[in-house]
Amino acid sequence: MTRVLIIGGGGMVGQKLAHRLATSGLEGAQDLDVTLFDVGFPLASAPGAQITGNLTDAAVIQNLAAQRFDVIFHLAAIVSGEAETDFDKGWAVNMMSMWHLLEALRSEHNATGGAYVPRVVFTSSIAVFGGPFPDKIDDAFLSAPQTSYGAQKASSELMLSDFSRKGFVDGMSLRFPTICVRPGKANLAASSFFSGIIREPLNGQEAILPVPDTVRHWHASPRSAAGFLVHAAGLDTSRLGARRALNLPGISCTVAEQIEALRRVAGQKTVDLIVSRPNADIAKIVEGWPRDFNPARAEALGFKAEDSFDEIIEIYIAEDLDR
Amino acid sequence: MTRVLIIGGGGMVGQKLAHRLATSGLEGAQDLDVTLFDVGFPLASAPGAQITGNLTDAAVIQNLAAQRFDVIFHLAAIVSGEAETDFDKGWAVNMMSMWHLLEALRSEHNATGGAYVPRVVFTSSIAVFGGPFPDKIDDAFLSAPQTSYGAQKASSELMLSDFSRKGFVDGMSLRFPTICVRPGKANLAASSFFSGIIREPLNGQEAILPVPDTVRHWHASPRSAAGFLVHAAGLDTSRLGARRALNLPGISCTVAEQIEALRRVAGQKTVDLIVSRPNADIAKIVEGWPRDFNPARAEALGFKAEDSFDEIIEIYIAEDLDR
Repeated sequence: MTRVLIIGGGGMVGQKLAHRLATSGLEGAQDLDVTLFDVGFPLASAPGAQITGNLTDAAVIQNLAAQRFDVIFHLAAIVSGEAETDFDKGWAVNMMSMWHLLEALRSEHNATGGAYVPRVVFTSSIAVFGGPFPDKIDDAFLSAPQTSYGAQKASSELMLSDFSRKGFVDGMSLRFPTICVRPGKANLAASSFFSGIIREPLNGQEAILPVPDTVRHWHASPRSAAGFLVHAAGLDTSRLGARRALNLPGISCTVAEQIEALRRVAGQKTVDLIVSRPNADIAKIVEGWPRDFNPARAEALGFKAEDSFDEIIEIYIAEDLDR
Repeated sequence: MTRVLIIGGGGMVGQKLAHRLATSGLEGAQDLDVTLFDVGFPLASAPGAQITGNLTDAAVIQNLAAQRFDVIFHLAAIVSGEAETDFDKGWAVNMMSMWHLLEALRSEHNATGGAYVPRVVFTSSIAVFGGPFPDKIDDAFLSAPQTSYGAQKASSELMLSDFSRKGFVDGMSLRFPTICVRPGKANLAASSFFSGIIREPLNGQEAILPVPDTVRHWHASPRSAAGFLVHAAGLDTSRLGARRALNLPGISCTVAEQIEALRRVAGQKTVDLIVSRPNADIAKIVEGWPRDFNPARAEALGFKAEDSFDEIIEIYIAEDLDR
């Protein structure tokens, strides 16, 4: 029996992951026992035990750690837009809770004389990068974030790497592309519109485009997100060497190319529902984000994303569109 | 009157800085009022008020912040060797105290309606880098530390950058080369021998070389260290753009080249006092350290180091050798 904890299991990616684990399992694991932790479970349809709590409470984290899960997916975060407006909350949830989690896991490690070394898979983000950028960001490009969210993710990566180097946990940080098309409602992430301009029109609703259509960005589907996480949980981490943060594969395209793909998949009437309404705050955040990558290490390690933005739209239609 | 705080003012670099401020002042400042903070002042000969305390005590930090210094140099750290063996102490002093300092300064900023924005100059380190390395590390190379000390410095850089981006402080992280020749006794830094093999022979004493003489490393003198700090305090930070961590200039040379320089400056009898005694623990740490840089940004911003290792030795003889 492999015991799995998904921190942030109530969120969209957490739910996708829980469904994926229920249907496909984990490489090398016979049976899975999955527990989902989150502040709430508004979307919950995936199987698994649910624990409700707040990561800013160190005692809550200690209780989780004391259950000595074999695999811990840490997906919980205050999203980029909210972390930018609520400075305290962003640092508390996105950085300090990682510190408390790692410290609590290290206590369990020590209490077992070093026998307990959980796999920890952490969802970092391409927001750890800040411009000026090369045409394609390679695996040796610096992390110089230009948002609090990015700084919090980058700090958490450094902690996870050091606790892993010391052998207290066996961790890995996955720098997610922007996940698109997110089902459900828009969230407070500054990146929310990248999904909105596809999702809303496909549901017959108007969508706001707050940035110029020349904006280029890096995307992968929710299906790929779950795939990244499952692949990371089963990976031989000795293959990572000393660098435990990975830039993941994705699709680089402009907003105009996203819209062209939507036209090909769903027609002009759908595209006509996109309304341009510039928002300087969002444009400023997005301007500082990466546009394209050469994720050679992750590809060599077997991580896979989509081949086109059309495919990303088709996955949304197949998995999430409610007709 | 410009009020200056040197956190870590009791250490070797802190004392050099205090002497420098007393003789040369700070650019743009008429009069200086200098306060030194440290756990102790065993070397103290520099002028300035002294405050003794421990950075792991958040109340101590709040008291310092409440004095609203104009310029704060943050030099205090648990050195690399000790941070590697005492994991708790390293993270507490090298990372958490930066967090508490920034939070305390932000409280003062808020209490003044945003008027108080201190200049914060933080001594980071080339230990934020980990191999594999290019021949010369450029300004866009990733920070992937392979020691706890490096991870703590890199995390602190991220926090200082984000608090600065938000306008709570006006900060800058200086990634110091290894400072050489350090006067006084060997310390617990894994890099201590780089100074020891020059200093001990010049004082007629035997010195242990724990690594092969093919080891290449990046050095600057204590005089340059003080110069970097003073230059940073007077710099127009708008010239830094969004990236507030800088790789500083230095001298790249092998241990064999260091020894050749010592031979040129002080003769064969002095060199004969160096005894090779391999230490695997030190060799392993040092193996993961950078060897050479192209510090283009810092040079363009006017930061300067020595032109040769001979000059580094001559500065030690002129400033610190007790004949």
